[in-house]
Amino acid sequence: MAAAENLPLTWVNGIAAGHVDLADRGLAYGDGLFETIRLHHGEPVWLPQHLERLSRGADRLQIPVDMSQLMTEIEQFLQPVSSHGVLKLMVTRGSGGRGYAPPLSDDAAPVRVLGLYPLPVYPGEPATNGIALFPCQTRLAHQPLLAGMKHLNRLEQVLARAELRGEEANAAAGQHTWLEGVCRDYDDHIICGTMSNIFIRADNSWFTPRLDRCGIEGICRRFVMDTVERQGEQVAVQNCNDQLLLQASEVFVCNSVFGIWPVTEFAGHRWPVGKATQKIQQSFNEVLNG
Amino acid sequence: MAAAENLPLTWVNGIAAGHVDLADRGLAYGDGLFETIRLHHGEPVWLPQHLERLSRGADRLQIPVDMSQLMTEIEQFLQPVSSHGVLKLMVTRGSGGRGYAPPLSDDAAPVRVLGLYPLPVYPGEPATNGIALFPCQTRLAHQPLLAGMKHLNRLEQVLARAELRGEEANAAAGQHTWLEGVCRDYDDHIICGTMSNIFIRADNSWFTPRLDRCGIEGICRRFVMDTVERQGEQVAVQNCNDQLLLQASEVFVCNSVFGIWPVTEFAGHRWPVGKATQKIQQSFNEVLNG
Repeated sequence: MAAAENLPLTWVNGIAAGHVDLADRGLAYGDGLFETIRLHHGEPVWLPQHLERLSRGADRLQIPVDMSQLMTEIEQFLQPVSSHGVLKLMVTRGSGGRGYAPPLSDDAAPVRVLGLYPLPVYPGEPATNGIALFPCQTRLAHQPLLAGMKHLNRLEQVLARAELRGEEANAAAGQHTWLEGVCRDYDDHIICGTMSNIFIRADNSWFTPRLDRCGIEGICRRFVMDTVERQGEQVAVQNCNDQLLLQASEVFVCNSVFGIWPVTEFAGHRWPVGKATQKIQQSFNEVLNG
Repeated sequence: MAAAENLPLTWVNGIAAGHVDLADRGLAYGDGLFETIRLHHGEPVWLPQHLERLSRGADRLQIPVDMSQLMTEIEQFLQPVSSHGVLKLMVTRGSGGRGYAPPLSDDAAPVRVLGLYPLPVYPGEPATNGIALFPCQTRLAHQPLLAGMKHLNRLEQVLARAELRGEEANAAAGQHTWLEGVCRDYDDHIICGTMSNIFIRADNSWFTPRLDRCGIEGICRRFVMDTVERQGEQVAVQNCNDQLLLQASEVFVCNSVFGIWPVTEFAGHRWPVGKATQKIQQSFNEVLNG
């Protein structure tokens, strides 16, 4: 990353800092939210959408975040940045409250964290060549009270992601580097990737899993749905299972940072990189370069 | 608390410190575990049991904690302490790993946090007089992969606890201070209190909810089960619902810090402080003072 050498890489509450208080409820209970935003030549992609999701999550968790203050800080933070990268936002409920009880609104002082990171590099040009999708054993729990939000309780994703590591080790002889795995719920519904949402094309229609019981409502997922609609189609949001996936003509996973990766292999099935997927990829590239 | 004035109140990895790195996975993902241990005249109550639960959780999450190092640090940390209080242990997976993926074992450097806090003071002598139990609307999700563990993903408890706050506000006219609420799962099973386990006496037998799908396996819960067994009875671990609760002759909640609180009111039902509950309270007091 070509960021200025003296750039502070992390801010806490508007000031360059590298740590948070031990009493922070983000640490104690995962009591907070985050966003991971792609920086393209220093420009945050889909910033309003990310902030809107963060704000919606803060409302649901009743964390009184000052969004205009956060926006001002982001602007200042990114002012010297002209490189590609990732901006990570985190908002916690801050310190205080005895035990699990959140502090009363008057005493609440949410903590805002900004971090600048290099854009991750993935081997094998997955956007062009596609990926094999690992079938994770880790199941996601149904919790409508937390579904959709990008909150800090992410042990399920850690467990799912660790599975890819284990398999990576097994496959060290050179078969695969698993870049993504698919997570199901306990009812065998497909929900998402470990760090992405998933779209399935079958019978000339697009499908994506409902996320009202588990999963994260991705910003790129929203973009894909809007793009498909602009192209004159609809994405059906519904229960999806392995059967739908295996009868698909195209499959892809997406997130705000890596964009859109075609899935070219799952459970012994193989697909080419699909035309409809490439059309959506093209729209994503226009967002970056438009 | 009568702790020495110059006592460092928190340690990180054996050194007095008040913060953790922003890259700590405990903050980023709730990727860690904790224990809350009662200190009686400086002595940690049920320390081996707490460490055993922590170690079991670390095994399940594959966090390579050096338990003997942790035990040595606890000993040093508590050496100057002679007061009542609470020792909080936290272990996170530490920094590192790209995204959700945990770092490989060789690179993993778990972070150990010790904290000394005053014993919470609750109004109304709840152990003697009993409490009214608030019926929380927050439901607990079934996630067997995480059930039983005292991990750092505790948003459900934060939401449940916040309900008591809301009600407290409503009841500011002086009806109640809710000290504890009961949480159910989405199948209407009673699971636990927001910060405690629950025992129900009905038909001259003790019942406590199964915790293999959600809830935390309390150290005090284990003590109660062993105590009941020593008294010649068994606790039945099973699905429990409101009906069982409402036909109970005695109910109590328990945790390692406050001990045992009789429940004397729930959903319009009232109970006296029960004899069988008092017998178990007596055993708990003997642990403290024996």
